[in-house]
Amino acid sequence: MALAAPAFAQAPNPEFPALEASQDAANKEPGPRSLPARVIPVPQADMSAAAQALAAAPYRVPAWNANPPDDAGWRAIVAKLADAAVPVLARAREQLGVTMEATAVGGVKAFVFTPRTMPDAHRNQLVFNIHGGGYVYGPGESGTAEAMLMSALGGYRVIAVDYRMPPDAPYPAAMDDTMAAWRAVVATTDPRRIGVVGTSTGGGMTLALVLRAKAEGLPLPAAIAPGTPWADLTEVGDSYRTNEWLDNVLVSYSGYLSHAAKLYAAGHDMRDPQLSPIYGDFAGFPPAILTSGTRDLFLSNTVRTHRKLRRAGVDAVLNVYEGLSHAQYLFNPAAPETEEVFKDIAAFFDKRLAQ
Amino acid sequence: MALAAPAFAQAPNPEFPALEASQDAANKEPGPRSLPARVIPVPQADMSAAAQALAAAPYRVPAWNANPPDDAGWRAIVAKLADAAVPVLARAREQLGVTMEATAVGGVKAFVFTPRTMPDAHRNQLVFNIHGGGYVYGPGESGTAEAMLMSALGGYRVIAVDYRMPPDAPYPAAMDDTMAAWRAVVATTDPRRIGVVGTSTGGGMTLALVLRAKAEGLPLPAAIAPGTPWADLTEVGDSYRTNEWLDNVLVSYSGYLSHAAKLYAAGHDMRDPQLSPIYGDFAGFPPAILTSGTRDLFLSNTVRTHRKLRRAGVDAVLNVYEGLSHAQYLFNPAAPETEEVFKDIAAFFDKRLAQ
Repeated sequence: MALAAPAFAQAPNPEFPALEASQDAANKEPGPRSLPARVIPVPQADMSAAAQALAAAPYRVPAWNANPPDDAGWRAIVAKLADAAVPVLARAREQLGVTMEATAVGGVKAFVFTPRTMPDAHRNQLVFNIHGGGYVYGPGESGTAEAMLMSALGGYRVIAVDYRMPPDAPYPAAMDDTMAAWRAVVATTDPRRIGVVGTSTGGGMTLALVLRAKAEGLPLPAAIAPGTPWADLTEVGDSYRTNEWLDNVLVSYSGYLSHAAKLYAAGHDMRDPQLSPIYGDFAGFPPAILTSGTRDLFLSNTVRTHRKLRRAGVDAVLNVYEGLSHAQYLFNPAAPETEEVFKDIAAFFDKRLAQ
Repeated sequence: MALAAPAFAQAPNPEFPALEASQDAANKEPGPRSLPARVIPVPQADMSAAAQALAAAPYRVPAWNANPPDDAGWRAIVAKLADAAVPVLARAREQLGVTMEATAVGGVKAFVFTPRTMPDAHRNQLVFNIHGGGYVYGPGESGTAEAMLMSALGGYRVIAVDYRMPPDAPYPAAMDDTMAAWRAVVATTDPRRIGVVGTSTGGGMTLALVLRAKAEGLPLPAAIAPGTPWADLTEVGDSYRTNEWLDNVLVSYSGYLSHAAKLYAAGHDMRDPQLSPIYGDFAGFPPAILTSGTRDLFLSNTVRTHRKLRRAGVDAVLNVYEGLSHAQYLFNPAAPETEEVFKDIAAFFDKRLAQ
C-alpha cells in the first residue's frame, strides 16, 4: 500500500463517459440521489501518514456490526474489547507521562488523570470527561483514551466518569451517574473553572448533561467540547447515509449503533432530548467546540449540533478534519491530528475557563 | 415527491445483511475504500423546505458536464446560461430592494450594489465581491448573485468585479483585473473597512488576492469570506471523490471543472498558489469565515483551507450546512439558509471591520 502523494494522484477516470450518461439518467427527476458503486482512494493531502493509515484501515470487525443475540453475548464482546484496550492504554499513559488513579465521585466510579506538566493557568481548572462507545463499549479503564489524551496533550487534571451501561443498566442509568458525578464535582470546584469533554456517545451525553443541569438548576460548565456527538439516536441526519460504508469506524447505522441505541433506550422515546439532545433547547448553552471529519458517519450530527447552537446564539466553533472517519482523533496518540484536536480544545478552553 | 419528515424516516435497509458481508470482504485489507451503489434520500431534518428542494434537484444539465470542443462552443454555453440568469437576477434585485449600477474601478468593469436599508455601522464599510463560475461562467450581470445577496441580506454597499475569463483571457487575466480593482478600491477606501467575499472560484480568488496583495505589499482586507473556495484546481482533496455524484451542482471534477481548470491555467502549473491557493503561505491572513455543506464536492477544499488557516494562527471559523451541495446558499434568495449564511458573514465582519 503506497500512501505517499504523487503530484497528481488521481488518474482520469476511464469509466467517466459511461457513468456520466447513467448518472444523468438516474438523477434526472427531483428526489433521492442515485450513487454508483465506487472505489475511493486513501486521501493524499493534508493528512499525516499516521492519519492516512487510519483512513486506509479495514472496517473494525467485529465491533462495527456486533449484534449479539442476548445480554451474555453483549457482555462477552464488550469485555473482550475492553480487555484488549486496557494494556494498550497503560503503555500509552507511560509514553505520554500521564498518571491515572481510580476514585469515586458522588458515589460513581471514576478515574483521575494528572499530566506530567501542567500550565500554571490550568492549576485550578478541571476537565470533566464522559467517554464514548455507543452506550455499550468502554467500561472501566478501557474507556479512558480521551481523558488520557486531554490530560497529556491539553495539560489538565481530568476526571473521567465510569458510568453504568446496558445491558445491565439502560437509560437513564448512564445519565444518572454522570449527573451524580457532576453534582459532586461542582460542589468542590468552581464550575467556571470546569470544561466538559466527550466524544461520540460522550459528546451526546455532554449535551444531555447541559440540558439536564439547566432543567435541574445545577451550575453549567464554563465550556464544552462535544466531539462528533451522537446527538441523534434515530437515523435522522444526512451523513448516516452519505458516509455509510465510507466511515471505516462506525461503517453504518445498521451495524451495532442501531442495536446499541435500542439496548440503551430500552423502550424510551429516542427523540427525548436526554437520549437525542439535538431535539433539546440549546438556549443558554456554554461556549462549545465541535470536531468531526469529512468521512465521519456523525458529520451531520456534528454540523446539525453546531448550527443549532449558533442559531441559539451560542459561541460555538466547528473543526472538520480532512479524510477522518468517526472519532479517529482518539485512535493514535502519536498522530499530529490527535495533538491538534486537543490543543485546539485547550486553546478554546483557555479563553473561556476562569483560572 | 414527499419532502416532509416523518418521525423515523429511514426504514431499515432490507439489503443490509448482504451488504454487510460483501462490504466486509471488499474492505478487509488496508487501502482504498469500496462503496456499494446506493440511493440516498433527500435529507429530512434541519433543512428548510426550500433547501430540501435544492437537495432534491436533478443534476444541472448541461452546465455540470459541459465540455465544448472549441472556444466558440464555450462562448455559446456561457452566453446561454448568462442570458438566462440576467432577468432572474433583475427580478430578485427588485424583490430584495437592492439597486445595481454598472461602473469601472481601476479600469476594470464592475457593478455597485446598494441595499434599501443599511445599518449605521456599515455606512463607511465596503464589501468587495469576486464572483464564482469555474473561471468560465458568470460574465457581466450574470455573475452578481452573491453581490446582490450580500448587499440585501448583509446590508452593505458591495462592489462586484467583472473580471476577464477564458477562453478569451486565461490566467492571469482574472487575477490581474481583480488586483487592479483592489488597488483602486484601497486607494479611496480604508482597507480596515473592507471585507472580501467570494464563493467557489470567487473564494479561491479571494485567497489568491490576499496572497498577491501580501507579495506586492498592498493593503490586506480586514476580513474575508471565502465560501466553499476552489482552493485546489488539481483533483487533490478527499471530497472530490467522496461527494462525487452526491453533489448535484458540480457533480464530478471530471465534469466541466476539469476542463475549465485547463482552460484557465492554459499551461501554467495548477499547483501555483495563484491558481491553487491551498499551496500558498497563509501566515498573516486576515480573519476568515468559510462556508460549505455536507454534500459539497468542495467540502475538502473548504476544510483544508480552514485547517491551514488555523495552523497559520489565523482567526478562521467554519460553518457547514446539513445536506447542501456546492454553493447552494446562493441559489434561492428566499431560503432561510441563504439568509443565515449572509447574516453570519455580516456578524463576523461586524466584529472585525473598522466603522
